[in-house]
Amino acid sequence: MRFIVADWGTTHFRGYLIENETVLDRVSSPEGVSALKPGQHRKVFMRQCGRWLDAEPKAPVLLVGMVGSREGWVVAPYASCPAGPAEIAKAMVPVDLDHGRQGYIIPGLFCEPAPGASDVMRGEETLVLGSGVENGLVCSPGTHPKWIAMRDGRIERFATYMTGEMYALLREHSMIGRPATEPEDPRGFDLGLEAASRNSGGADGERVGLLHLLFGARAAVVSGRMETGLLAPYLSGLLTGDEINGALSQFGRPSLVTILADQPRADLYRHALARHGIETAVKAPQEALIAGLAWIVRHHPAG
Amino acid sequence: MRFIVADWGTTHFRGYLIENETVLDRVSSPEGVSALKPGQHRKVFMRQCGRWLDAEPKAPVLLVGMVGSREGWVVAPYASCPAGPAEIAKAMVPVDLDHGRQGYIIPGLFCEPAPGASDVMRGEETLVLGSGVENGLVCSPGTHPKWIAMRDGRIERFATYMTGEMYALLREHSMIGRPATEPEDPRGFDLGLEAASRNSGGADGERVGLLHLLFGARAAVVSGRMETGLLAPYLSGLLTGDEINGALSQFGRPSLVTILADQPRADLYRHALARHGIETAVKAPQEALIAGLAWIVRHHPAG
Repeated sequence: MRFIVADWGTTHFRGYLIENETVLDRVSSPEGVSALKPGQHRKVFMRQCGRWLDAEPKAPVLLVGMVGSREGWVVAPYASCPAGPAEIAKAMVPVDLDHGRQGYIIPGLFCEPAPGASDVMRGEETLVLGSGVENGLVCSPGTHPKWIAMRDGRIERFATYMTGEMYALLREHSMIGRPATEPEDPRGFDLGLEAASRNSGGADGERVGLLHLLFGARAAVVSGRMETGLLAPYLSGLLTGDEINGALSQFGRPSLVTILADQPRADLYRHALARHGIETAVKAPQEALIAGLAWIVRHHPAG
Repeated sequence: MRFIVADWGTTHFRGYLIENETVLDRVSSPEGVSALKPGQHRKVFMRQCGRWLDAEPKAPVLLVGMVGSREGWVVAPYASCPAGPAEIAKAMVPVDLDHGRQGYIIPGLFCEPAPGASDVMRGEETLVLGSGVENGLVCSPGTHPKWIAMRDGRIERFATYMTGEMYALLREHSMIGRPATEPEDPRGFDLGLEAASRNSGGADGERVGLLHLLFGARAAVVSGRMETGLLAPYLSGLLTGDEINGALSQFGRPSLVTILADQPRADLYRHALARHGIETAVKAPQEALIAGLAWIVRHHPAG
């Protein structure tokens, strides 16, 4: 079966013509939703993917990512966890293309990690459905990494961390990260993971606070106890370590976590999880995305 | 006894002529150390305080704050904890004023909260010595709040949190704080404190991670479950709550904490600590600073 896909995020548009799980053709452009005004989306889509629509008059058209957010083409309201491909396909929102054709925007997911608390994803639901994990814990790293508990092929619940954005904030705007110099000394990553263990609430219950450990990086630099080349990897290790502490507290300690990331990011998680005695499987995000889209399209009445 | 003081921080110069603990005269200017180049400090000091030097030829001269940092006049190396007024007075570093007079820069303090870990303060050591607390826990809020354990009139150890700077980062530069609107709804502060309890490692050991709770604020806004007027106070409550969780984990749970802050900041801490059943005493920072300086000058051989 052939289908047409737009992976349409904040900063990029990526179009694919797919047969089963093979990419036959692709386009990409910097026309992310943040660069567009209301009413421009159809024109962009048709310019990028119109020739595939003409060539494949029966192919379903799916759109995934921030294209369904308030800043996107049409709002695709969040579906609620637990959700599998059937629930997600059912909650897709149609958009009118040219010549009476319709595309379908895949909704994001909402979950309530505790009474009154909130979490959301938009795009990762498709990746994780394509991860091949029916039961188990999946991690999708990035600006806002997601940890996702799969059960019987459905997304049971998930938790997001602002790890990547926090790293960028600290490096670009804070007194904590400003003294960092290059070349980076990668041994700082392990020092940061080690520091994070002081906030794990482990055997001795120690939980000194991330805000304290972050200041400690500055204190180590200004007191001459840390070389400035160690600082950036240290902050990365500390934030990643604290993310993992939190995820293991929320989801328990599985023997295996599946990481949806390319190298070298996947290696950093593999290394950090090994400290907890947890093994990792790695799957490339693009491969997972295509597999997830194929899975959803098979559950779609228009598919 | 009269003495002359410069409270010289990153952004401001504040000079005081003091008799015992009474301020007889004062000056201030925006000539903080970050605005000055090497070699300019003496001239600024003499222009601001020179008339007091002439009028009080015997008065000791003390300088406190970032004036002793690497960006300051002369580096006053950190003294080590535990330290009381005698150790701090002994570690003061002289600077040459005009006419053969000398001033003394009060050193900051270093402590090692765990093997290999670091913490520093510069200025707060003087405040806390003037807090009147001989034994107990003192909190000095600010950009980088300090929690300080006093024992027998000496600073035993302390922990710094980057709470204030983190709040500013989130408000000014992040996707998390960007949707915040005014007027602020102060009820958000309590919601943030409540959320922080999910990271306290309390009775049920729940420790979901600050990076997760921060993203949760964004998730609540984009899913329509939080009014944007609540967001800024919510982030303030969440960060303050997580700071307090960490401090209580490090220093135990005293029945009383002394807060060195003006209103309304002192009230926020009072309110947040009351949730833990902890009472607060409040002392104004300027009063504590003057008292601490008087205490140190009495221990100084030149005093």
